[in-house]
Amino acid sequence: MKKLIIATANKGKYDEFVNIVKGFADEIIFAPEIARLIVDETGKTYAENSMLKARAWAEKSGFPCLADDSGLEVNALDGAPGLYSARIIPGNDKDKVSWLLSQLEGKTDRKARFVAALALCVPGKFTLICEGECKGEIAHYQFGKNGFGYDPVFIPDGYNLTFAELSSDVKNKISHRADAFRKILEFVK
Amino acid sequence: MKKLIIATANKGKYDEFVNIVKGFADEIIFAPEIARLIVDETGKTYAENSMLKARAWAEKSGFPCLADDSGLEVNALDGAPGLYSARIIPGNDKDKVSWLLSQLEGKTDRKARFVAALALCVPGKFTLICEGECKGEIAHYQFGKNGFGYDPVFIPDGYNLTFAELSSDVKNKISHRADAFRKILEFVK
Repeated sequence: MKKLIIATANKGKYDEFVNIVKGFADEIIFAPEIARLIVDETGKTYAENSMLKARAWAEKSGFPCLADDSGLEVNALDGAPGLYSARIIPGNDKDKVSWLLSQLEGKTDRKARFVAALALCVPGKFTLICEGECKGEIAHYQFGKNGFGYDPVFIPDGYNLTFAELSSDVKNKISHRADAFRKILEFVK
Repeated sequence: MKKLIIATANKGKYDEFVNIVKGFADEIIFAPEIARLIVDETGKTYAENSMLKARAWAEKSGFPCLADDSGLEVNALDGAPGLYSARIIPGNDKDKVSWLLSQLEGKTDRKARFVAALALCVPGKFTLICEGECKGEIAHYQFGKNGFGYDPVFIPDGYNLTFAELSSDVKNKISHRADAFRKILEFVK
């Protein structure tokens, strides 16, 4: 594939994708660099939202587009913040992480999973949607500076560090996005 | 593929798919024979609706599911009935065809196209969506008994007969659904 547009306005997500998809396309483009476009995330599932974003950007640009919709599902919160992870409260990433920690005060079950739906839209040909997950638990405090979103409190199973403490190379082998992208690669070379 | 569920409650559509997908699966199943399920078609595009149906049936059954959302887009009606082709007015297929002919009275441009989005959902692996089209024009009267929906008034380009007059073998080579399914076959063998 020559050009691939990463259909997100989130620079942290873009940086992560550059690492995950390298070798898949000659040129990897951050969507806001080529157009202005706001896509309403009206779907009721990660899959719907990722498809809406990938297709909207593919229609706008004419190039293959990869979009993601993802969330953190926490056992003790009945799967919240889930689909609303990025907009559960107003504010920045740090505010959302503080909100999450406050919600979990006094809870013993800290199990959680990150889930992602990735949609690859190649205009005139197909839209392919694959889902991935990464299981883990929520730390009691924030640790680390890497990544974005809830990374500073998510400790993936099998590790003693949060996503924000792990190197991007490690995170991008085990993450929910990496898991979903491996499924995409089974179809599209 | 061993089992494939055709995720529709429309027997005419199921019969057509049996013909289109033969050889793709050992066993082809009409969805209502295995479960009761009503899927709200809340999407704003054929692609969204086909995905909603394929994923809902795949979740319900655990088997690979193929769904379609399709419509007839008529030039002189600014693309109507389009996404609402099956529910543009209450009543049966014949009522809808009569409605269409009445809308086109006095119009000289009778060009139209059938469009379809097909979604194939293989649980735990992927959802693949491909779109197809078949261009043609709207006849002045209804002709033929085959097919369903607007088939009796749709004359595909290159033919002098409506979809309802053509044999199913011919229709299923040139139809919007066949066009979309060919794109699916480029990925999934």
